[in-house]
Amino acid sequence: MAAPYFVQSAHIFFPIVHYVSFAYPMTQAEIFMSQALQLAENGLLSSAPNPAIGCVIVKDGQVIGSGFTQPPGGNHAEIQALQDAAAKGHDVRGATAYVTLEPCSHFGRTPPCADALVRAGVGKVVAALEDPNPLVAGQGMARLQAAGIAVESGVLAAQARELNIGFFTRMQTGKPWVRLKVAASLDGKTALHNGQSQWITSPAARDDGHMWRARAGAILTGIGTIKEDNPQLTVRTVKLARQPLRVIVDSKLSISPEAKILVGGGNLIFTATVDTAKQAMLEQQGAEVVVLPNPSGKVDLPQVILELGKRQINELHVEAGSKLNASLIREHCVDELLVYLAPSILGDGRGMFGLPALENLQDKISLKFHQIQQIGEDLRILARFH
Amino acid sequence: MAAPYFVQSAHIFFPIVHYVSFAYPMTQAEIFMSQALQLAENGLLSSAPNPAIGCVIVKDGQVIGSGFTQPPGGNHAEIQALQDAAAKGHDVRGATAYVTLEPCSHFGRTPPCADALVRAGVGKVVAALEDPNPLVAGQGMARLQAAGIAVESGVLAAQARELNIGFFTRMQTGKPWVRLKVAASLDGKTALHNGQSQWITSPAARDDGHMWRARAGAILTGIGTIKEDNPQLTVRTVKLARQPLRVIVDSKLSISPEAKILVGGGNLIFTATVDTAKQAMLEQQGAEVVVLPNPSGKVDLPQVILELGKRQINELHVEAGSKLNASLIREHCVDELLVYLAPSILGDGRGMFGLPALENLQDKISLKFHQIQQIGEDLRILARFH
Repeated sequence: MAAPYFVQSAHIFFPIVHYVSFAYPMTQAEIFMSQALQLAENGLLSSAPNPAIGCVIVKDGQVIGSGFTQPPGGNHAEIQALQDAAAKGHDVRGATAYVTLEPCSHFGRTPPCADALVRAGVGKVVAALEDPNPLVAGQGMARLQAAGIAVESGVLAAQARELNIGFFTRMQTGKPWVRLKVAASLDGKTALHNGQSQWITSPAARDDGHMWRARAGAILTGIGTIKEDNPQLTVRTVKLARQPLRVIVDSKLSISPEAKILVGGGNLIFTATVDTAKQAMLEQQGAEVVVLPNPSGKVDLPQVILELGKRQINELHVEAGSKLNASLIREHCVDELLVYLAPSILGDGRGMFGLPALENLQDKISLKFHQIQQIGEDLRILARFH
Repeated sequence: MAAPYFVQSAHIFFPIVHYVSFAYPMTQAEIFMSQALQLAENGLLSSAPNPAIGCVIVKDGQVIGSGFTQPPGGNHAEIQALQDAAAKGHDVRGATAYVTLEPCSHFGRTPPCADALVRAGVGKVVAALEDPNPLVAGQGMARLQAAGIAVESGVLAAQARELNIGFFTRMQTGKPWVRLKVAASLDGKTALHNGQSQWITSPAARDDGHMWRARAGAILTGIGTIKEDNPQLTVRTVKLARQPLRVIVDSKLSISPEAKILVGGGNLIFTATVDTAKQAMLEQQGAEVVVLPNPSGKVDLPQVILELGKRQINELHVEAGSKLNASLIREHCVDELLVYLAPSILGDGRGMFGLPALENLQDKISLKFHQIQQIGEDLRILARFH
C-alpha cells in the first residue's frame, strides 16, 4: 500500500481516495490488511449478496497466498488464499492470515472457512472486524481460538466496514444502504425547466456514475423518470456477470409496456394500485409486481426499502426525479447522497429535491460531507445523513 | 517550506492550500522563492494598492535578511530585507536576492528598489516574475543587469501571480479581480423564501468569509441586500489598519440615510438617478455618489468595475443578492465565485443567481473549479469564469 496519491490540477489538490488511505505510517498488520482490502475490491461487483472480502496469508514477512470472494457458490477469500499458497508450493503452517472479515463458522453455500484455516494449520488469524450479524458475531474467532490459533481483530475495521457498507448495514438493520445520485450544476439545478438535462456533467462523471450503479444490488427509479426520460437503467460501461435488479416505484401502475426499463425482464415494480390485468401483463414481460400502499394511497417507501433488504440487496442505488427524491428523503429512506456537481450555472431550472419551502432554517435537513473527489471537470460529493 | 500538509476528516482529505503547494521536490531557487512568497502573505491585508511582495537575501545557502511590503509609503520588500540583513550584521555583497516581483525601477512613493540592490552590491537577483505593467516590464531587471548583477526570472511565477491576482489583473486590464461570494445549502439555496438566511453555513465558514473581505480593496453590494439585511459589510474578525471601501449599487438612489453600511462614512454609491438633494445628504454623511447609468436606466456595471480599477482597487469582493449577482454575471463582471456549500438541504427556497431559464443546455455558463477546501463542516469552492 503506497502513501495516498494526490492529483494536482491547477490549485485543486484531490486525493484519489480508495477505501484505504493513510496520512500516518502504517503498522505491519495494517499494511497486510490494506493489501487484503485492495484484493477485496476485486469482488465488489460480483460477490453480492455476500460481502466482498479479501485475504492474504503471510509467512516470514512475505505474502505467500492471496484471494478474494468469488461469485455466490464459489470460494470465500480464505479458501482462495489457501489454495493460492498451495498452488505456489508454500507451506501455510504457522503463517498469519489477514482477512477483512471474521472467517465464517457456519455452512452456507460453502463449508465454514474457520474450519479450513484450522485444518491448514495457520498460526494466527487477524480479522479487520467481526461478523456484523449479532447471531454469529465472534463464533468464527472463537472456533479458531478453540483450535489453538492466535486471533486478533479490529485492524482497519472502519475501512473494512466502508468497503462493504451495504452488507454491514443490511446485517445490522435488515435494510440496504441507500445511495441517492444527483447530477447538478454548481447552482443546484438538475435540468432546465423544459426537462433538458443531457448533459450537465462530463462523460467522466457519467462513467463514474455507472461504477456506482454496477456495485449496487438494485437500482431504483420512479414512474416520473420513466415517462420523461425512458431510461434503461442498465450498467453499460462496466462488464458485469449480472445486471443490478431494476426497481420501479409506480403508485398507479401506469408504466407503459413499451418502457425501455422493462426490456430484458427481471424488474421489480412497487405499486399502490391493485390492477390484476395490468399486473398479469407486466408479469408476462418478466416483471414482478408488489402492492405496497401507504395510507395516502402512494407506495410505502420505507416498506419498499425493507422488502429490498429481505431480498438481500446490500446497496440500493437511486436515480429518480426531484419528487421521488424528496419523498425518499422525507421518509428517511436515504443514507447517502452521491452528488456530481458541474462547474456551470444554469439559472432558473429544476432543483435537486422537490421539497416544500421551510418556515424556519432550524428545520433544514442536515448531512455530513463524507468524501469529495474531482471526476473529470466535475466534483463528486458524498454526503451522509447520519 | 514544508511539504503540503493534509487534513484528514473521515474519508475527506483536503489539503490546506497556501499559495505555494508542491507535489514534487523543489529546486533550491523554488525553496527560497517559496519562503519569499510566505513572507509576502504578511502584506496581503495592508500593502494595497501595492502588491504584497516578499524578499529573502541568501548567502552561502543561508537566509541573511528578509522582508515584505510595508503599507503604502513604507518600504518595499527588498529594502526591508536589505535593512534586516544590515541590522543582523550581515554583509549582502555577492548575496542572491529572491523577490516575488521584479524590483521597481521608478520613483513612486519610494525610490527605486533596483538602485538600492545595486548600491548594496548583491551578486544576483531572482524574481518570480516581471512587472505586469507593460510600460515598465523588464526595466528593473535591465537596470540590475546593466550594473553587472546576474538576473533570473520565472521562478514560481504562477504562485506569485496568484498571490497578487488583483494587482496583476488591474495592471493588465485596468479592472480589479472580482470575486463573488455565495453561501448556500448543498441543494443550491441561499435563503428560505421568507428571506431567512442566518445561518446556512457554519461560524468557521463565516470567519473565513471575513478573511476574503479583509484582503479585498472594496466590498460591493446592492440596494436590495441593504434593504433586506441592513449589513455593515465591515471586516470584524480580523484586525485591519483600514477597512475595505464599501461600494453600493443603488440605481434609484433609494438608500436610507439610516442604513448601517453608511456608518463611519467613506462609502461609494453608484446610481443611475440624478437626485441632487439626496446626493448632497449622502455626501454630508461622508459618502461619494457617482452617477453611471446604462441605456436601460440601471447602473452600468462594467463601468463600475472600470471606475473601481481607476481607484486602484485590486480585489473587489461582492456580497449581494441573487438579482445583482445575476446582473454582474450576465454582464461579464465576475472573475471568480467563492461558494460556501453547507452539508444541508433546504428544499424550495431562493437560488444563488436570479438568472432566467435557459431553453438550451448549451447556453449554460461554464466555469472551472479552481480550489476546493473544507472549512469547518462546510466546503469552500473557488470556481473561475476563465
